[in-house]
Amino acid sequence: MKPADSTNKDTTKNSAIHFEEAALLDAIDPLRHVRNRFQLPQDIIYLDGNSLGPLPRATASALSDVIQRQWATDLIRSWNNNHWITAPQRTGKKIASLIGAAGNEVIVADSVSVNIFKLLTAITGQYPQRTTILTESGNFPTDAHVAQGVAEMLGLQLKLVPREQITEAINTDTAALLLTHVHYKTGQRFDLATVNAAAKACDVSVLWDLSHSAGAVPLNLNHTGTEFAVGCGYKYLNGGPGAPAFVYVAASQQRSMKSALQGWMGHSAPFSFEDDYQPASGMNRFLIGTPPILSLLALEAALDEFVAVDMDVVWKKSQTMFDFFVSQVTRNCPQLQLMTPTAPNLRGSHVSFSHPAAWPINNALIARGVIGDFRTPDVLRFGLTPLYTRFSDLAQAASILSDIIAADEWKKPEYSRPAVVT
Amino acid sequence: MKPADSTNKDTTKNSAIHFEEAALLDAIDPLRHVRNRFQLPQDIIYLDGNSLGPLPRATASALSDVIQRQWATDLIRSWNNNHWITAPQRTGKKIASLIGAAGNEVIVADSVSVNIFKLLTAITGQYPQRTTILTESGNFPTDAHVAQGVAEMLGLQLKLVPREQITEAINTDTAALLLTHVHYKTGQRFDLATVNAAAKACDVSVLWDLSHSAGAVPLNLNHTGTEFAVGCGYKYLNGGPGAPAFVYVAASQQRSMKSALQGWMGHSAPFSFEDDYQPASGMNRFLIGTPPILSLLALEAALDEFVAVDMDVVWKKSQTMFDFFVSQVTRNCPQLQLMTPTAPNLRGSHVSFSHPAAWPINNALIARGVIGDFRTPDVLRFGLTPLYTRFSDLAQAASILSDIIAADEWKKPEYSRPAVVT
Repeated sequence: MKPADSTNKDTTKNSAIHFEEAALLDAIDPLRHVRNRFQLPQDIIYLDGNSLGPLPRATASALSDVIQRQWATDLIRSWNNNHWITAPQRTGKKIASLIGAAGNEVIVADSVSVNIFKLLTAITGQYPQRTTILTESGNFPTDAHVAQGVAEMLGLQLKLVPREQITEAINTDTAALLLTHVHYKTGQRFDLATVNAAAKACDVSVLWDLSHSAGAVPLNLNHTGTEFAVGCGYKYLNGGPGAPAFVYVAASQQRSMKSALQGWMGHSAPFSFEDDYQPASGMNRFLIGTPPILSLLALEAALDEFVAVDMDVVWKKSQTMFDFFVSQVTRNCPQLQLMTPTAPNLRGSHVSFSHPAAWPINNALIARGVIGDFRTPDVLRFGLTPLYTRFSDLAQAASILSDIIAADEWKKPEYSRPAVVT
Repeated sequence: MKPADSTNKDTTKNSAIHFEEAALLDAIDPLRHVRNRFQLPQDIIYLDGNSLGPLPRATASALSDVIQRQWATDLIRSWNNNHWITAPQRTGKKIASLIGAAGNEVIVADSVSVNIFKLLTAITGQYPQRTTILTESGNFPTDAHVAQGVAEMLGLQLKLVPREQITEAINTDTAALLLTHVHYKTGQRFDLATVNAAAKACDVSVLWDLSHSAGAVPLNLNHTGTEFAVGCGYKYLNGGPGAPAFVYVAASQQRSMKSALQGWMGHSAPFSFEDDYQPASGMNRFLIGTPPILSLLALEAALDEFVAVDMDVVWKKSQTMFDFFVSQVTRNCPQLQLMTPTAPNLRGSHVSFSHPAAWPINNALIARGVIGDFRTPDVLRFGLTPLYTRFSDLAQAASILSDIIAADEWKKPEYSRPAVVT
């Protein structure tokens, strides 16, 4: 791969791109010192933090200690001595502070999919007379798949409706409403308070998937009437590939919730080794099996990068990044169609453009060191991650994207090859 | 903590312990060179490999590469370029070769508990008219807890019976039989072929939990009529704390099995992002969410330690270890009652003794550098792990155990303190 920096030196700097404005924005960026806390490759402009966040330097050190001291030396004693046993609660508490929840309302466990299953069975169990699980058509697929599995198992109907019809589709026959807060493809964002209120009017509980929200947009679960949520650890939270996910249940709801998926770590006394399952109080009941400690402690370490930053400052920079990047791209690449709403309150922290040749364009970008995402069938998606992305990176990415399109660089046959399933 | 080796120098070597026999057995041990492949603390005799296996040196190197190159440098591209996406299948294939299964019959995913849930819902779904899930009372608790959750959700009855009554309790109303192959506490082992045949006679499917078997005792799933199994990655397989678990389904059964817990990684075309769930063919349908890659690749690396060893040689050494350790302990500690059957075909690779003061005795052992396990209410459990445990370690452990009991060392008040929940 040709390094992005040297590529830039090879070609005439695209004069239509506002590199000087970018430099100015970088100079006054209150988060500019945070970038150094991440280990980022020199030759890459990484705009895919909403698929996999980069490695925080502190995580590398933490993992070295986990492997060499905690696992190799302390061995089984680490469950107590190095507090592995309370890592799900500790990590949950750190996430709680980022999403406007109390420390005892969030726990880290399993995957987003498994956590959706836990909460959907718990919520629908509260409404045994109701027949429908409602979600958005075109939601992130795993959400719909899990809901479909729950519906088939319980003899319920899964109803998928377009997002603009969601609110009117809620009725007293709705056993649960499952929605993703920020859409993985378009970046569109629901208003938590509005949807929660509409659902509440029919006594319906909403389960929110915050995978593209947590660590990206300001969230105040407690003040928006949010009762149930899950989210991802490996995107904006930078927890590492396949990092465990989180579960949020408002304190007022915890006592009555009973997941169909239950295991020993969620028992009120796991080490009494009793046959009969008695759910732990609070969020502990949403633990199931032994957690994957290496992945869990990587996430815990990564969350410390958020301690020193204010989520409002993060979101403010995200907005400036969005405006800057979109203005550069739309002016220089009129062939791309912006899919993401421009109003900040209507979107998350990524931006998507459509183009019939999105697949080869994305491959050409990667070959030039700009890593974004392709989403089928025609979407170019770029994650805007304020902790480590510079405005100059965005200028450079826009410049390369513009070159690729203007010079038909994406038409090279190698960029149209189908994805290799390895 | 006082190192085990120096402790030994402090006291007169217990003359009743056969240290010379241990030295001889070590000298002729065909696996003696394998120990060096593990990173073990010098001051510890580790007899808890059936709770958490030690760190293989190769795993430390593999994880360093995963963190520094694959995550930090290759970032999102690693899903394809470093083959993260196929790690569940690759790792499953390695486990398959240890348990007498075909490479396409095992996949690695989630935890043992979650995998029991998948298979129990899939199996009971085949017998909608039957009303009972059968398991052993005193089974490892999570197995019973998961079964209880499934039963409550589906309106079935969970029946727990003592192990000696299991076979006669199977009848044509049994929707699924869930058993643990080697009992976590006593070490007792069921005969797979016998139980499978008894179940088959009533057209009942058995789901086996192999957590205390895989990597420890010879297993030939294909030749014992075993159709369904799950197992643990962090015990004898040395996959690291909370390593992901595995799922086995005999090839003949895969097509008809449908878990109630389904997610995008188990879709026939995960990257088509379709609303409708279509299960992948084969074992892939038992994948749910994005796997915890750090933990998964640690397990994958650890499994390579088994490539160069023959499981029959491992099991042969386990038997010699059992006979040696039990003879030393029973002769020198008559106060301890052996709980594990002595016949090799009736047990796994750990040995348990009961004593009313098991808790303080175990604490005194740990203080002297001998790490085994306490299991409530009165069990001392020692894992016999042929890959890295020496006969001289067993002699030393028996000597210290004998000292502790003979000298009432366990009566020191600090050893009776209750476990600190941290």
